[in-house]
Amino acid sequence: LSFAPNSIVTFTTDFGLDDPYVGIMKGVVLSLNRAAHVVDISHRIPAHDIVAAMLVLRSSYSYFPAGTVHVVVVDPGVGSRRRPLLMVSDKHAFVGPDNGVLSCVFQKERTVRVFHLTEERHFLKIVSSTFHGRDIFAPVAAQISCGTSPELFGPEIEDIVRIELPLPRRLGPNKLLGTILRIDKFGNLITNLSLDHLVGPRQSEGSNLRFKVSLGGRNILRLCQSYSEGMGEEPFAILGSADLLEISVNQASAAELLEAQATQEFEIEVL
Amino acid sequence: LSFAPNSIVTFTTDFGLDDPYVGIMKGVVLSLNRAAHVVDISHRIPAHDIVAAMLVLRSSYSYFPAGTVHVVVVDPGVGSRRRPLLMVSDKHAFVGPDNGVLSCVFQKERTVRVFHLTEERHFLKIVSSTFHGRDIFAPVAAQISCGTSPELFGPEIEDIVRIELPLPRRLGPNKLLGTILRIDKFGNLITNLSLDHLVGPRQSEGSNLRFKVSLGGRNILRLCQSYSEGMGEEPFAILGSADLLEISVNQASAAELLEAQATQEFEIEVL
Amino acid sequence: LSFAPNSIVTFTTDFGLDDPYVGIMKGVVLSLNRAAHVVDISHRIPAHDIVAAMLVLRSSYSYFPAGTVHVVVVDPGVGSRRRPLLMVSDKHAFVGPDNGVLSCVFQKERTVRVFHLTEERHFLKIVSSTFHGRDIFAPVAAQISCGTSPELFGPEIEDIVRIELPLPRRLGPNKLLGTILRIDKFGNLITNLSLDHLVGPRQSEGSNLRFKVSLGGRNILRLCQSYSEGMGEEPFAILGSADLLEISVNQASAAELLEAQATQEFEIEVL
Repeated sequence: LSFAPNSIVTFTTDFGLDDPYVGIMKGVVLSLNRAAHVVDISHRIPAHDIVAAMLVLRSSYSYFPAGTVHVVVVDPGVGSRRRPLLMVSDKHAFVGPDNGVLSCVFQKERTVRVFHLTEERHFLKIVSSTFHGRDIFAPVAAQISCGTSPELFGPEIEDIVRIELPLPRRLGPNKLLGTILRIDKFGNLITNLSLDHLVGPRQSEGSNLRFKVSLGGRNILRLCQSYSEGMGEEPFAILGSADLLEISVNQASAAELLEAQATQEFEIEVL
Repeated sequence: LSFAPNSIVTFTTDFGLDDPYVGIMKGVVLSLNRAAHVVDISHRIPAHDIVAAMLVLRSSYSYFPAGTVHVVVVDPGVGSRRRPLLMVSDKHAFVGPDNGVLSCVFQKERTVRVFHLTEERHFLKIVSSTFHGRDIFAPVAAQISCGTSPELFGPEIEDIVRIELPLPRRLGPNKLLGTILRIDKFGNLITNLSLDHLVGPRQSEGSNLRFKVSLGGRNILRLCQSYSEGMGEEPFAILGSADLLEISVNQASAAELLEAQATQEFEIEVL
Repeated sequence: LSFAPNSIVTFTTDFGLDDPYVGIMKGVVLSLNRAAHVVDISHRIPAHDIVAAMLVLRSSYSYFPAGTVHVVVVDPGVGSRRRPLLMVSDKHAFVGPDNGVLSCVFQKERTVRVFHLTEERHFLKIVSSTFHGRDIFAPVAAQISCGTSPELFGPEIEDIVRIELPLPRRLGPNKLLGTILRIDKFGNLITNLSLDHLVGPRQSEGSNLRFKVSLGGRNILRLCQSYSEGMGEEPFAILGSADLLEISVNQASAAELLEAQATQEFEIEVL
C-alpha cells in the first residue's frame, strides 16, 4: 500500500451541531497532530442512519487529495461488541465502526486492507462505552494522519459487515424498478439508476432517450439538461452530479410535490 | 490590480449542511491548493435566494484579510446559459454565477475587473450541468488562491447582471418608506435605513433623534443603544452592526412579535 | 502563568449558521493572525442561554491542546455595562462577556487570572454596541493567539459573575433530587449526577448498583453499559461521555418519550 498521509482528516457523523461532540473530536485530533486540517463533510446525517452516512461518504471522499483520512461516526452499536475499524487503500484511509458504513469503499478502491482496532495504547487513556468518536476514532485518525503505520493498530481482518445498496430490478423487457436512495436539501430525489441502466450499450447517450417514470401518482417523461429547464411545478428527470438519475422540480422540492421518501421504489419504462 | 492571494477561500452557498456538497467543494479546493484555508460564511442561505446571499457576502467579505477569494454558489441557473464569473479587486477575488449575487462588490470596491470563466482547462475534467460549485467555481477559486493570473480564466467583460437593493423612498417632508432587507437568527429586522437617512447632515447624531416607525400595527418610538436597554416585549430601534437601523426586542424575536418578513415595507416619520 | 499560545482559537456562540456573524468573526481573527486555526465548538447554543453555553464549554475545552484560546459569545448584555473578559490559566485562555459563561473554568483549572478588557487599542477601531464578538472578543483572541501578553489588555480583576450549577440534593438516607442539565441532539438527558453520588466511597463501582429514577411518570431501574443494550422503547440509565448519569432510549429520544426538559428535577432512590 502506498498510502501517504497529507494531514487532512474529514468527519462525517450524526452528531449534529448543537452539542460539543464534534468540537471535542477536533480537539482530540489537534492534540495528537497539531498540523491536522479537519474538514466537515456533514454532521447532519439522520441519527443512526448508517445507509445515509455511507451514501454521503461514497459521493464525497474521492474528491479529497490522496492521503486524506476519513472518519465516519454513525454508530448505534457504540460500546457493544461491534468492532472499530481502520481501512486503508492506496489513496485514502477510513476510520469508523464495523456496521457497514465503510463498506462502500470496496466498490471504488482497488486494494483495501482492513484492520480491527484493538491496540488500546493508541486510544484515549479511558475509553467510554458511549463516545468512541472521541476515545478511539479521533485518536486513531490523528495518528494515521501523522504517518503511524496501519499495522500497529490491530490485526488485519477480512470479514467486515457490508451494506448492499438496492440495485434496479428488471420488471419486463423495457421496465425497471428503481429506488430513491437519498433526498437532498433541495428536495431532489437521487435514485439508484445511472444512464447505463436506461441506454443500451450500442445506443448513443442522452437526448434521444425517452422514458416514463411513475412516481407519486404522476408520470414523468421529460429529461432536462439543467434544473432551470424545468417548467413551473412540473417534475422532470435529470442526470445529477453523482451520475445518477434524479427527479427534480425547478426551484422547488420534488420530494414535497411527489410526497417521496428515501428507500421508496418506482417504475421506469423505456419508451 | 494589486491582488495577491493569501490562500484563504470563503464559501457562501445555499447547499445546507445535510448533504456532502460543501465537503466535496472543500475536497476539490484542497486537491488543487493543499495550503488553502477554507472558511464557511454560511451554507444556510435560503434555497435559490440570490438577494439573501448578496446581503451576507456584502456584510462579511471586507472583514477578511486582503488576498482572500470568496466563492458564492446560490445558482438556480446552473447549467443554463448564465455565465460563471471571476471578479477581482485590489483586495479580494470573487467567484460565482452571473445572476447578480456578486454585484454588491461594485458598491464597496474601487476598481473591479470581471472575467467570464471560459477556459475549461481550469475546470474539473468533466463539467456537470448541475454542480458548477464543484466543477467550475471551486477549482477556479483554488487556482486563484495559488496565484494563477485572473486573465488566464477567460475574457474580461463588463455587462454583468446587477441587483439593486431597494432604497428608502421619500413619502413626504418628514416621512420615508423603508424596507426590511433581512431577518437574522435572533429575529432582528435589518432595514435599509442608515442614520444618514434620518439625520440631516448638519444635525448631530444619535440620542436626540426622535422618530416613529409604523410596523405590524405598532408604533416604535424608542432608539436604544444596546439590546439590553429594551424593556419586556417592547420593540425598539437600534443601530445594528452593519450600521443599518434594526428593529429588535430584548431577548426575543421582533420578527415573530411583529409578524414581519424580509422585503416588507414600513413607514418612518422623523418627529 | 505558563500559557503559550498554539494559534488554535475555538468559537462557541448562539449566532447560528444562517447569518454572516460567525464568518465575520473568523475574518477578523485571520486578519490579525494569518496562522490562526479557528475551530467551531457550536454556534447553535439556544439564543441568550448562558448556562447551555457554559455546559458546552466545560465539556469540550480541555480536549484541546494546551495553548488554545476559547471564545464564547452568548451575550444578551452586549453594549451594556457588563464587562468583557479575558481569563488565562496555564493551559488555556478564554475570552467572553462577564455574565457567568466563563465561570466553569474555575472548577477545572488550578490557577486562573482574569483581566477586564479595557485597552481599546486592541479592539477594532470602531466598537459597536451590538456585536462585541466582532469588535472586541475576536480581535483580543487573535492577539492572544499570537502571543500578546494578557496584562496588556486591561487590569486584573477578581470579582466576576459566577454561575453555580444545581447540585444533587439529599432528600433522605437513600434518596436524592437530581436535575437534568442538558438534552443532547439524540434526546439523551444529561443529569447532574455522577457515580460518586450513587455509590458510597467503599462500595465497588458499577454493575451491582441498584436504583430507581422517577421521571415523567416512569420508574427507570436499569443501568446499561452501552446504548445498544437498551430494549425497545424502555428508558435506561447510562454513564455518559462526560461521566454524568444520562437517561437514554436505544435509537430514540428519551426527551420525547419522557417529555423531559433541561432544568427539570427528578428523584433517584438507591435500592
